[in-house]
Amino acid sequence: MKYGFGVDLGGTTVKIAYFDESGQLLTKWEIPTNTQNQGQQILPDIAASIEAFISREQLCKEDLLGIGMGVPGPVRPDGTVAGCVNLGWGELNIEASLSKLTGLFVKAGNDASVAALGECWKGGGKGYQNLIFVTLGTGVGGGIVIEGKVLHGTHGAGGEIGHVCINPTETIPCNCGNYGCAEQYCSATGIVRLAKEYLAEHPGSSLGNVTAKAIFDAAAAGNADAKAITDIYYDHLGRFLAMLCCVTDPEIIVLGGGVSKAGKPLLEGARESFLRYAFPGCRETEFALATLGNDAGAYGAFRLICEK
Amino acid sequence: MKYGFGVDLGGTTVKIAYFDESGQLLTKWEIPTNTQNQGQQILPDIAASIEAFISREQLCKEDLLGIGMGVPGPVRPDGTVAGCVNLGWGELNIEASLSKLTGLFVKAGNDASVAALGECWKGGGKGYQNLIFVTLGTGVGGGIVIEGKVLHGTHGAGGEIGHVCINPTETIPCNCGNYGCAEQYCSATGIVRLAKEYLAEHPGSSLGNVTAKAIFDAAAAGNADAKAITDIYYDHLGRFLAMLCCVTDPEIIVLGGGVSKAGKPLLEGARESFLRYAFPGCRETEFALATLGNDAGAYGAFRLICEK
Repeated sequence: MKYGFGVDLGGTTVKIAYFDESGQLLTKWEIPTNTQNQGQQILPDIAASIEAFISREQLCKEDLLGIGMGVPGPVRPDGTVAGCVNLGWGELNIEASLSKLTGLFVKAGNDASVAALGECWKGGGKGYQNLIFVTLGTGVGGGIVIEGKVLHGTHGAGGEIGHVCINPTETIPCNCGNYGCAEQYCSATGIVRLAKEYLAEHPGSSLGNVTAKAIFDAAAAGNADAKAITDIYYDHLGRFLAMLCCVTDPEIIVLGGGVSKAGKPLLEGARESFLRYAFPGCRETEFALATLGNDAGAYGAFRLICEK
Repeated sequence: MKYGFGVDLGGTTVKIAYFDESGQLLTKWEIPTNTQNQGQQILPDIAASIEAFISREQLCKEDLLGIGMGVPGPVRPDGTVAGCVNLGWGELNIEASLSKLTGLFVKAGNDASVAALGECWKGGGKGYQNLIFVTLGTGVGGGIVIEGKVLHGTHGAGGEIGHVCINPTETIPCNCGNYGCAEQYCSATGIVRLAKEYLAEHPGSSLGNVTAKAIFDAAAAGNADAKAITDIYYDHLGRFLAMLCCVTDPEIIVLGGGVSKAGKPLLEGARESFLRYAFPGCRETEFALATLGNDAGAYGAFRLICEK
């Protein structure tokens, strides 16, 4: 039996998990992400933490497949990041650097793409080979798996689906500088914005609190205004997902991120709207919720090194 | 040296080409497509034509890689078409059927996806591994190549990019039944429609003839109204291509189909508009014109059987 590490590198903490090659998560821990001095301590800190584990557990490096890593930014096919703003990094070959520090094989990918691989391998998309994973959080991220492999893209921007334009008449810019990105409507921030627009047009509404959670809770409890708002939200989300399916035609769409805590009503609302907009050939596409939560990145990161 | 056949099956004619394994097209010919009786003679006709060639040229079947085929409809991964309206076919496993008739290995794919593979292998995308091929013809078709392989999709609808919704406020339906598909704006039919809308709003226009060719010709000759129309067209096309790049992040976009005869102005107009809409990570995506014309399908079809 071989073993290896899956690392999910975030702007605040680094999640490190130790797996056997069957994909069983044996143990996991976290270390802080030190973003000082252009993040130059991040990879040495990860290397030291893994080396300490190897030494403490008396592991033999010959039994280790290596280290897979998800990072918050685009990763080019050669293992180079061109800049991760949250980490302070400029251009850096993270695969070569971490490999040199540890003597282990290293494979890196964009965090959302890697989480998609995790959900495909062991989560909501288990048993499927072609998947689109959509994270509906503060923003909208995603990842695409085709025949069991991550679609990294030429510039590391494969699966940057949050920035597909779904409303060409938008006048407010997205964080990326463009207008009408899916992220502006389908994120947790997006639904709050849709709610504020709705409430401005319906001043007598019974809805007080407008967080994403409060809106979905109120809709589930039967509040008519909240239901009207979630219907607008589902309309955007379903149309967006239908657009993606014309491109990669997956077996299944897996919804994750904070908004996916809304659960079954989200799944049903998204699917119903999807069917209104889907290309006829794609109407059988299945829908599921993500199941791995914060561990999706570590699972997918480890899976990256199983692919070699 | 091994050899094989690339077949481009259309609603009127079947183009058959004979290649060596390096991808050199050695000879090609056409037979009519017999769509009578639910198209039941189509595969026997192809088999007979290929068998006659093998016999005439005294080829040894052991030297043959097989037959690759592009068909005008979705093809599932197991070689089944679920219905090709133009051919009269219902559900049919075309790989198994043609293989049984010829004793040769057969691999089939959607015609536009297969043409994308041809352009990637020997055409406008030669030397690239990740490509989106867009055919701007009567409709908008396309195909996606990732790491040198066709993205067929789960339901054979991979690369059905003409039906990505690029205008959610459209009120006129597309042929597919949905509203606002890229095909409604970016096809040859689409530019004629955009021209008619423009001319209705600008009744004093100097533009007489409104075919796609006439509009591009007039724009190239400096006609201000034609330039205004092509600018509207490029705006749609560039935004559409930018949307696709957020999903699969190709190295290069190759433009083919009748509209691509407009040549360099089309390439420059599309690219300029693309840069206005592109996700920052995708701005380096290259653009090229298709070069194989009507042979793209045959090249790609033969390439399908080289992949095995």
